[in-house]
Amino acid sequence: MENFRNESDLLGTLQVPVDAYYGVQTQRAIDNFKISGQTLSSYPHFIKGLAIVKKAAAKTNYELGLLDENIYRLIAETCDELTAGKLHEEFPIDMIQGGAGTSVNMNANEVIANRVLEKLGKEKGDYQFCSPNDHINLSQSTNDAYPTSLKMALLSMNVELVVKLKKIVEAFREKGKELTPVIKMGRTQLQDAVPMSMGQEFEAYAATLEEDISKLNANANLFVEVNMGATAIGTGLNAPVGYANLCAKNLAQLTGFGVVSAPNLVEATPDTGSYVIYSSALKRLAVKLSKICNDLRLLSSGPRAGFFEINLPAMQPGSSIMPGKVNPVIPEVVNQVCFKVIGNDLTVTFAAEAGQLQLNVMEPVLSHSIMESMIFLGNAMDTLREKCVVGITANKEACLNMVRNSIGIVTALNPYIGYKNSTEIAKEALETGRSVYDLVLERKILSEERLNEILDPENMLKPHHPM
Amino acid sequence: MENFRNESDLLGTLQVPVDAYYGVQTQRAIDNFKISGQTLSSYPHFIKGLAIVKKAAAKTNYELGLLDENIYRLIAETCDELTAGKLHEEFPIDMIQGGAGTSVNMNANEVIANRVLEKLGKEKGDYQFCSPNDHINLSQSTNDAYPTSLKMALLSMNVELVVKLKKIVEAFREKGKELTPVIKMGRTQLQDAVPMSMGQEFEAYAATLEEDISKLNANANLFVEVNMGATAIGTGLNAPVGYANLCAKNLAQLTGFGVVSAPNLVEATPDTGSYVIYSSALKRLAVKLSKICNDLRLLSSGPRAGFFEINLPAMQPGSSIMPGKVNPVIPEVVNQVCFKVIGNDLTVTFAAEAGQLQLNVMEPVLSHSIMESMIFLGNAMDTLREKCVVGITANKEACLNMVRNSIGIVTALNPYIGYKNSTEIAKEALETGRSVYDLVLERKILSEERLNEILDPENMLKPHHPM
Amino acid sequence: MENFRNESDLLGTLQVPVDAYYGVQTQRAIDNFKISGQTLSSYPHFIKGLAIVKKAAAKTNYELGLLDENIYRLIAETCDELTAGKLHEEFPIDMIQGGAGTSVNMNANEVIANRVLEKLGKEKGDYQFCSPNDHINLSQSTNDAYPTSLKMALLSMNVELVVKLKKIVEAFREKGKELTPVIKMGRTQLQDAVPMSMGQEFEAYAATLEEDISKLNANANLFVEVNMGATAIGTGLNAPVGYANLCAKNLAQLTGFGVVSAPNLVEATPDTGSYVIYSSALKRLAVKLSKICNDLRLLSSGPRAGFFEINLPAMQPGSSIMPGKVNPVIPEVVNQVCFKVIGNDLTVTFAAEAGQLQLNVMEPVLSHSIMESMIFLGNAMDTLREKCVVGITANKEACLNMVRNSIGIVTALNPYIGYKNSTEIAKEALETGRSVYDLVLERKILSEERLNEILDPENMLKPHHPM
Amino acid sequence: MENFRNESDLLGTLQVPVDAYYGVQTQRAIDNFKISGQTLSSYPHFIKGLAIVKKAAAKTNYELGLLDENIYRLIAETCDELTAGKLHEEFPIDMIQGGAGTSVNMNANEVIANRVLEKLGKEKGDYQFCSPNDHINLSQSTNDAYPTSLKMALLSMNVELVVKLKKIVEAFREKGKELTPVIKMGRTQLQDAVPMSMGQEFEAYAATLEEDISKLNANANLFVEVNMGATAIGTGLNAPVGYANLCAKNLAQLTGFGVVSAPNLVEATPDTGSYVIYSSALKRLAVKLSKICNDLRLLSSGPRAGFFEINLPAMQPGSSIMPGKVNPVIPEVVNQVCFKVIGNDLTVTFAAEAGQLQLNVMEPVLSHSIMESMIFLGNAMDTLREKCVVGITANKEACLNMVRNSIGIVTALNPYIGYKNSTEIAKEALETGRSVYDLVLERKILSEERLNEILDPENMLKPHHPM
Repeated sequence: MENFRNESDLLGTLQVPVDAYYGVQTQRAIDNFKISGQTLSSYPHFIKGLAIVKKAAAKTNYELGLLDENIYRLIAETCDELTAGKLHEEFPIDMIQGGAGTSVNMNANEVIANRVLEKLGKEKGDYQFCSPNDHINLSQSTNDAYPTSLKMALLSMNVELVVKLKKIVEAFREKGKELTPVIKMGRTQLQDAVPMSMGQEFEAYAATLEEDISKLNANANLFVEVNMGATAIGTGLNAPVGYANLCAKNLAQLTGFGVVSAPNLVEATPDTGSYVIYSSALKRLAVKLSKICNDLRLLSSGPRAGFFEINLPAMQPGSSIMPGKVNPVIPEVVNQVCFKVIGNDLTVTFAAEAGQLQLNVMEPVLSHSIMESMIFLGNAMDTLREKCVVGITANKEACLNMVRNSIGIVTALNPYIGYKNSTEIAKEALETGRSVYDLVLERKILSEERLNEILDPENMLKPHHPM
Repeated sequence: MENFRNESDLLGTLQVPVDAYYGVQTQRAIDNFKISGQTLSSYPHFIKGLAIVKKAAAKTNYELGLLDENIYRLIAETCDELTAGKLHEEFPIDMIQGGAGTSVNMNANEVIANRVLEKLGKEKGDYQFCSPNDHINLSQSTNDAYPTSLKMALLSMNVELVVKLKKIVEAFREKGKELTPVIKMGRTQLQDAVPMSMGQEFEAYAATLEEDISKLNANANLFVEVNMGATAIGTGLNAPVGYANLCAKNLAQLTGFGVVSAPNLVEATPDTGSYVIYSSALKRLAVKLSKICNDLRLLSSGPRAGFFEINLPAMQPGSSIMPGKVNPVIPEVVNQVCFKVIGNDLTVTFAAEAGQLQLNVMEPVLSHSIMESMIFLGNAMDTLREKCVVGITANKEACLNMVRNSIGIVTALNPYIGYKNSTEIAKEALETGRSVYDLVLERKILSEERLNEILDPENMLKPHHPM
Repeated sequence: MENFRNESDLLGTLQVPVDAYYGVQTQRAIDNFKISGQTLSSYPHFIKGLAIVKKAAAKTNYELGLLDENIYRLIAETCDELTAGKLHEEFPIDMIQGGAGTSVNMNANEVIANRVLEKLGKEKGDYQFCSPNDHINLSQSTNDAYPTSLKMALLSMNVELVVKLKKIVEAFREKGKELTPVIKMGRTQLQDAVPMSMGQEFEAYAATLEEDISKLNANANLFVEVNMGATAIGTGLNAPVGYANLCAKNLAQLTGFGVVSAPNLVEATPDTGSYVIYSSALKRLAVKLSKICNDLRLLSSGPRAGFFEINLPAMQPGSSIMPGKVNPVIPEVVNQVCFKVIGNDLTVTFAAEAGQLQLNVMEPVLSHSIMESMIFLGNAMDTLREKCVVGITANKEACLNMVRNSIGIVTALNPYIGYKNSTEIAKEALETGRSVYDLVLERKILSEERLNEILDPENMLKPHHPM
Repeated sequence: MENFRNESDLLGTLQVPVDAYYGVQTQRAIDNFKISGQTLSSYPHFIKGLAIVKKAAAKTNYELGLLDENIYRLIAETCDELTAGKLHEEFPIDMIQGGAGTSVNMNANEVIANRVLEKLGKEKGDYQFCSPNDHINLSQSTNDAYPTSLKMALLSMNVELVVKLKKIVEAFREKGKELTPVIKMGRTQLQDAVPMSMGQEFEAYAATLEEDISKLNANANLFVEVNMGATAIGTGLNAPVGYANLCAKNLAQLTGFGVVSAPNLVEATPDTGSYVIYSSALKRLAVKLSKICNDLRLLSSGPRAGFFEINLPAMQPGSSIMPGKVNPVIPEVVNQVCFKVIGNDLTVTFAAEAGQLQLNVMEPVLSHSIMESMIFLGNAMDTLREKCVVGITANKEACLNMVRNSIGIVTALNPYIGYKNSTEIAKEALETGRSVYDLVLERKILSEERLNEILDPENMLKPHHPM
């Protein structure tokens, strides 16, 4: 049998589990929002973001003389506990809620207040000694504390994501070095083009992903602008003069991120531009990863009726009916994660556009979507690296044969015999099935020695010295 | 200390927990796909879909003489257990996987095979007596069994979703009846237009949502076309003649849905058109719900500086800083769910477009996105109905005052004095702040009696009899 | 030197080109909306939709005694001229405007009124004899006339689009018949699977597109529900009793479409559900076309380092640098059109969701996006059919060789030697490069005669008779 | 009767209009791509981008000794003509084409070659003296020249777009200054919150848009990295050593943009990341503009049954049926443009994800979508500024009355009487309709003087000095 305590608010009295650190407003949110089944307690970065914001706020209030030292110390201590991973099960609110995050902010306020009360030797719910609103939320509003917590969470999550991104960049780069001796046909529009080394191809994957390290960091850096001190609508009502800057400074010190106060708090409060563009940066990364996975699946197509240039590590039998079939399951799952990220970006776009007047009330779904994208992408990159990229091998001989048989190498003759003559040779090769090499020799356009030099695949991988 | 048994497949031997009903291929999938943390075991409809497909397949194999009676009976019995909700914890695979569903299909094959082995008094993994591939998957491929299971799941989920939709339609209709006596200004482009009854407004919400009952059902009905018997690519290799139709018939009988075999199995195997359009129908519902929630929030804006036409039930204190504030948290959460559904629809679009040649390998993320949308939408509609719609009240007097003060009622004079004269009166009313009524009287354009009749709000709610 | 006449409205007097059939409100719209440069005059179906609605409205007004016969006849005559393609240059309004279509509706009202005045021997602008508002717009509002005109336009455009769709279905079907003798490897997940005929592959393209004929028609059929008689907000203010049904009946008779009055006009007026789902049906078609074009590009990849199964007609030299290169430019342009259609569907979704209260003011961009998608898709399908599908040829010998060398044919042995034994053979074939056929013979698992029968590609294209 | 000349290419001979500067490949593209009806000739920035790239390439070839001086001078002269707006009608190719831009590149090559021939006194088509491929396209491929031209075009277009953005920022800022004396209720979640000045609200619009100036510029700046010298696939085959860097340097000098050679040309050739993120930045701007227009429409709702805080300039009569109605048509059209931009961004996303291997063949639709978004957004911002923002006026008295009647001002009492006491007063005010002021006085919680000071709206617009 569960026991309850009574708590009350504007709407009346409600039963809360007697041992719960959360209080009446969290309880209302539990009852009101049964949507996704995914709760705040599964998003530890978010809880830590709330904790650090509440600590910074308390510190600021203390320094400005609004909070007495004992209460401040106990609040700070409790926030440190949350940051250390404690009491996360006390955040049972659905990630998708109405109220612009009020329930989440109050959840944090209530848990911290009750834990402080416990430390004070008081009963839970005995808020005269430490109140969720008057002490923990002092000089704050959901409308500043919630987005600031979210931003602190995203900054931390971005750091972790970038680590994973760097690792996969490194894996592609290493693989590129390893595959440098493999000469293969480059393809444009899926048609044979001109030769390249497989090392160039994989190095390009490293290079294209590497660009997104700075892109993610630059866009995440928009999150350092916070609106603490804005209170309800950015005018700062009920926050003391000086609070905004001091709180930002305290946050900077506590987090190590370069947190600053937004230059215009009325603007900053409803603005979701930083989320929109950070989500876009995630989308850009997803687009690139998806393109790369499409390539890996193409290059490993076969084994007998496909490109058969590379072999992906076999991770599991590929078919319940076709024995021996091994499928590119890892790139496939990454593609799917990328589609999810792109879908989430659209959700973010809708949520951002729906903001009205002095607040954007759709931030919960926006935060849920961005965090989901970050978690999925991080997992996908680790999976792709560990279970696919590092184990890729090349079918070197097969690749070289395709180059030797190709018509595309005729391109290298342009500078010597002109586009029009080259075209004629290409046409004849295509129609007769004969090799470009033989046809050129036959026509006595170039000496055998000269031809050997020009058509040496190695010479076709880079610009030439004009002759 | 956990104990393991050894199982082997194409790739070698692997340890599986000794008590697990699942086997080596499930274990590989657990290891390979650590992406979303959301597992098949949380999607009971999907597991039931797999169970009913495996039962129908076994029945068909038995009837065609490919499976002996005892094994068939035990398979059927096991499938019934799954349908009853048992062993769902044996489906630990991430909802987002590579392999086009092979892992999911093999998970079902393995769990059923091992449960049958248990009934036969054999050890788990002793597949010579009942094999995941040769018995449970007999005459099937992932490429037919997986999408068919998915379709059976979606058909069931659609039934439940439509029940929820019908309930909210009914709630809006009831509310419409209740609010019929409230006369208010209709608005177009957010500008005052002409009068209407609030009953008409809410009845319209019922009517617009009601259309989606048949829309959802019609589009879900595309799922009754299944490709059992297609095996790997739709050619039916390894399936016996007659299997496709008989299996569809058995599925129809077991599910009560009008399941039929797709007319062209090569087409049906990679085709995701039914998912695309069903997801679009979900999106359409989301767009309508979102529009309605936008309206509810507008109409309840205020209380002193907004429209203040209706009052939504107060669900929780609205602000951590503004005492007494009560926010439209329920419509807000529904808006957000709608944005999620729209985002998921985009994921489905990407997944569908990415299908190649004889299969669409992106079905796992497609199924995850559709199911998520259905679950969220169902929860959102129940929430909206229970916690908002049924408790809405109107501010009747305030609404009527807005009608009386409005300029828009001048529209009703058009048929009597012409658009141009009406325009002049409207202009003067707007500039002077005076009422249309007074201005018409003053100009002696119409008698007082006639004017009273025309401008009676009740007379403005419907077409008139020409005079 | 251009001459002008003066016209006036609520906002004052404005100069209109003296010869223009349009009037002051069109002139304001020209001045106000300089956005896309794409004008109504380039969308003849839309102008014809306006014409037929204005004619039906006039007929209804005449039949209900609201319009005298002479004016009615002249209006009808003018509308017929518009339907015949005349005066379209008098519709210079940007397709993307504010005002929920008021400018478009007034453009039609003004052009028709001035043309009637001309027929009456009056000056343009002398609206006392025939007024855009009091005569042409009689018993109407933009809010009913505009969407109804749009729906009539879309119904006509759908008819044309479906003709193009049918033609491409037929082209794929013919090509499928032609390619039936070509035996090739089917592929799942880009890996070799089991054999099929190329005829089955192309017939599947026909079949999958064919489904969209009924899908487009069924969703277009939602447009037959119109809200004429709704006037401003669906209450029918200023429309006479009986007008709604009679006008729908007249529209049905004039258009040949089964036009009916929407059962709830208050619902019908802001509702954009029919556009949303029709746009989704266009998106579904685009997704399918894009998938098919992806396939065609894959199958024609090469010529030496790709799949090289089919040859697309050479339409233009493929490269400014690579002689002899021929690219799949036609499927490529179709892919791009499909991406445009998918983007337009998102625009439609946003526009639909943004509807508020008694009207959706975003219909202009919604109509522009749908029409653009229809036009582009129609052109793309004609292009794909004429310049690609009909001229496709197969590389029959190359296809057969891939089947003969494949490992996937081992699947056909499952029913005879079990999945596990087949797996071992597949594995050895893959590792040694030897053929499945030789390995089976060597192991003396099956007689040569039996093996020949089972592995005959022809026998692998369909279900087998159990033995 | 039109006269033709014959030209030939890989595919044979074709008739070209005798006077056309374009040649056979352009003619093929005209015939092949009849899709959108929107041709390159309507995108002058793109043609100028091509001209400047061709000039830079010729200059580089000349400096490296590959092109003789006379031909180089004539090419440069011709490019200058194109930059000056001449011969744009010679670019009749549909903006949406297959072939990855080959047709566009060849169109430029052909026009320039024929114009040079003309200057040389030769016949058009007499390419032995100056060839589209061997002279104009020397050391280039479509795969470097096309995207580089596009990037030069986008850099120019961005400059123009940012000018328009700056102007609207300035307009909002000026309006903010003008409206500073207007005190109004701030609203969160559409519910009355706390007071603010309307100046703060409009200044926030300026501030939020202003952020996008640097955002657009920073993302456009990615376009300065070009891949000239990459030739077909980035390996630089057929380009001389040193070409890439010298050509970038020449481009920098000719354009004034800080053009540099991409560090990895194999990566740069298929990469579309810069387009993806620039399009996202356009989307971000669109999201902000749309939010602002939503606000303007809300704030001007009424006149009698809405917020009635501001008046937008009347641009046109608002209704064909409702006399005197004036609608917010300008914000409405801007909203619609924003939806188009968001849709276009999705098209860009799809096009980017569809890139394969060494090239992204979908660049034409990508470039079309981005350019369309830029043009529409630019027009929309000018329209919004000129026809709406600058003419906005406030209903000062009405705004102040809403503040005086509001309950939200109770928030200001929190620091003095606590959240709980404030809640009780708010509740009573809401239920009784009485004012917060009266209730506080009645309860004797604060002196009248103190209360007057706290509740003075002016004091509520900013942080307070703790007391």
